[in-house]
Amino acid sequence: MSLKITNAKRIEGLDSNVWIEFTKLAADPSVVNLGQGLPDISPPIYVKEKLSKIAAIDSLNQYTRGFGHPSLVKALACLYEKFYQNQINPNKEILVTVGAYGSLFNSIQGLIDEGDEVIIIMPFYDCYEPMVRMAGATPVFIPLRSKPVNGKKWSSSDWTLDPQELASKFNSKTKAIILNTPHNPIGKVYTKEELQVIADLCIKYDTLCISDEVYEWLVYTGNKHLKIATFPGMWERTITIGSAGKTFSVTGWKLGWSVGPHHLIKHLQTVQQNTIYTCATPLQEALAQAFWIDIKRMDDPECYFNSLPKELEVKRDRMIHLLENLGLKPIVPDGGYFIIADVSLLDADLSGMKDSNEPYDYKFVKWMTKNKKLSAIPVSAFCNTETKLQFEKFVRFCFIKKDSTLDAAEEIIKAWTGQKS
Amino acid sequence: MSLKITNAKRIEGLDSNVWIEFTKLAADPSVVNLGQGLPDISPPIYVKEKLSKIAAIDSLNQYTRGFGHPSLVKALACLYEKFYQNQINPNKEILVTVGAYGSLFNSIQGLIDEGDEVIIIMPFYDCYEPMVRMAGATPVFIPLRSKPVNGKKWSSSDWTLDPQELASKFNSKTKAIILNTPHNPIGKVYTKEELQVIADLCIKYDTLCISDEVYEWLVYTGNKHLKIATFPGMWERTITIGSAGKTFSVTGWKLGWSVGPHHLIKHLQTVQQNTIYTCATPLQEALAQAFWIDIKRMDDPECYFNSLPKELEVKRDRMIHLLENLGLKPIVPDGGYFIIADVSLLDADLSGMKDSNEPYDYKFVKWMTKNKKLSAIPVSAFCNTETKLQFEKFVRFCFIKKDSTLDAAEEIIKAWTGQKS
Ligand SMILES: Cc1ncc(COP(=O)(O)O)c(C=O)c1O
Ligand SMILES: Cc1ncc(COP(=O)(O)O)c(C=O)c1O
Repeated sequence: MSLKITNAKRIEGLDSNVWIEFTKLAADPSVVNLGQGLPDISPPIYVKEKLSKIAAIDSLNQYTRGFGHPSLVKALACLYEKFYQNQINPNKEILVTVGAYGSLFNSIQGLIDEGDEVIIIMPFYDCYEPMVRMAGATPVFIPLRSKPVNGKKWSSSDWTLDPQELASKFNSKTKAIILNTPHNPIGKVYTKEELQVIADLCIKYDTLCISDEVYEWLVYTGNKHLKIATFPGMWERTITIGSAGKTFSVTGWKLGWSVGPHHLIKHLQTVQQNTIYTCATPLQEALAQAFWIDIKRMDDPECYFNSLPKELEVKRDRMIHLLENLGLKPIVPDGGYFIIADVSLLDADLSGMKDSNEPYDYKFVKWMTKNKKLSAIPVSAFCNTETKLQFEKFVRFCFIKKDSTLDAAEEIIKAWTGQKS
Repeated sequence: MSLKITNAKRIEGLDSNVWIEFTKLAADPSVVNLGQGLPDISPPIYVKEKLSKIAAIDSLNQYTRGFGHPSLVKALACLYEKFYQNQINPNKEILVTVGAYGSLFNSIQGLIDEGDEVIIIMPFYDCYEPMVRMAGATPVFIPLRSKPVNGKKWSSSDWTLDPQELASKFNSKTKAIILNTPHNPIGKVYTKEELQVIADLCIKYDTLCISDEVYEWLVYTGNKHLKIATFPGMWERTITIGSAGKTFSVTGWKLGWSVGPHHLIKHLQTVQQNTIYTCATPLQEALAQAFWIDIKRMDDPECYFNSLPKELEVKRDRMIHLLENLGLKPIVPDGGYFIIADVSLLDADLSGMKDSNEPYDYKFVKWMTKNKKLSAIPVSAFCNTETKLQFEKFVRFCFIKKDSTLDAAEEIIKAWTGQKS
């Protein structure tokens, strides 16, 4: 093999990926898959019907505007204007992308240079780190830390950033911080006070904020999702990211968006026009039409933005209960559709697992998938190499699953606890 | 505005884009749009029907395999095995991407380093240059040149590379050459001898070939599309790129693919998993099902791969005739769905056009769109800044248009020639 024909340096070492590895494992149909964030509930009927109808219209199967299909950016502007003080220009302040993933990529490639530093809060949605590295920048990590919880339930709100520690990560090289609220995998919903600490530092150090808010509608009783872009001085330095997959439970549509000031969005647009140029037209039109249905009934409990979190809260509580029955102390999430739990309490016998260099949770999930036919995702996959140990006892369970799937998980857990007792 | 919050250097100067500018111009509904390569004929009915049906299936609205939906990579492997000597591994030697655009991007980001040289043949599909620049590499340009044509029709096959000139562009820094056959905008279909010259140089200089074959099915009587990857010694160094948009006249689906040896495809996969992760599931499944229909009847004239070029050949001939009536000498394309013609022969009075720094063809198209309500694309958009002058007399017309659109163009041209005579 020739030496010259090798990979570009920018992708060196960025080839491993937790989804690829664990999705393969869970593909066995006998496995109950609580791994990847993949809803097995039905998406709203009108979302699917819109796509069915649109597929028949010739012109909606052809190229549309590169930065976002006109009807979709209009719907998004109308939706988000309800949450921002300012009007949103659909053509200049919104970019439609290939999923939230595409928005993260466009933001990082468009705004982050080689040698820049980017602050990433751990655990983090796994692509943040390789995306920052692919841009030649240096990720600077800071963990969410949990206060001791005595007796009471352990909640995602017990996990916080230490303001001093956070301040120590900012310096003149800091180009951006990546925020994720509601948080995957912990389920933390950042409070006003917490966001203000971040906003103050962003302003003090003239730093961008890339705010990944894909679970924006999925917050549970007693919590409220806040947009850091609406804090004074933050609009001009924030890219806010959303996802159709998470909003309408159609992860397979891979549409997302970035909202922000034109002086930032225009650079993301430049990346887009030199990477994929435009997103799929029929999906964008169907999404726009679905949005209009729910935009018109936002105060109505039937609005999907209200009904889905209600539906999920029941599932969350059920899953908490199940995990507690297993003897775990799950961290009750305030948002999102994941629960993490320290599985080392189960004292599983992993001695038979090969590849002993892997973190505990990788081995545990493989063991559980094989022996219990239940799959999940290891939380250390959401950490950088040096800090995997901090989270390697934790495993993430996804609860956006239909009742029959949760029933099957319950059966497995009952049999498991039966064996234990 | 803060100084720190600016674009990343990698996208500096890459923000202009011909499609954005000219698509906006042609959006006026009174304009007959022969500009962007946007079919206004109906896509095959089964393609649309498949999507309609699939939209109703819950699981096909969720995430699928990141490197390509299983049924789609299987269909692609089966299809292309008919053209390659070797078997194709659907999981390792194929990557499904966001359009051919996404395949070009993944190839360039995955394989081209800062400081590398990449040979680009002019005129070129416009994204090649900024994509190469975004990777920090240096594009090295070589033009297709036309032999004198006396009396006879001017054909795309009159445009050739000078083998000596081509050889002079290769050196130890040359990482890749980007080939496009059938060619946009000239319509050239490279012959066996021409491809052999390129293959020999790739092998001699240990160079990659990125072969953009999105118009692979669209070749006209007397011509045959050949894949450079099937030439001896070329499979191991070639990425071959295709597009669903061009194959099934659904440009709005934005699905494409790269085919090549695993030691190259794996690097494109790494780029994909750090940029968009996965493509839309319902579109991929519908595309797979559409492919199976046509794979099973490839020798049948009804197979879309056979029927579309037949349908288009008639349109090509009609458009040639129209342009000749206008007093032009269009270059008859052997493939693709574009025709270019030297419009300076029309002696249009462009003195009223602002922005006199623009190339002739930019001004001409703007003038024609405004005054004749007919739009096209300036060919100098397919050239780098230094060589725009070589092609600035040429304008590109798209002929994948339904008869009523071509009738409307004919009306315009008749009125125009009436005015002239
Ligand atoms: C926090 C977070 N950001 C981004 C994404 C990617 O979203 P999309 O599928 O829209 O690309 C996910 C998906 O799980 C996520 O959890
Ligand atoms: C030569 C060439 N390559 C690539 C593309 C992009 O194709 P897609 O829409 O599949 O990204 C086009 C579209 O016009 C093209 O003409």
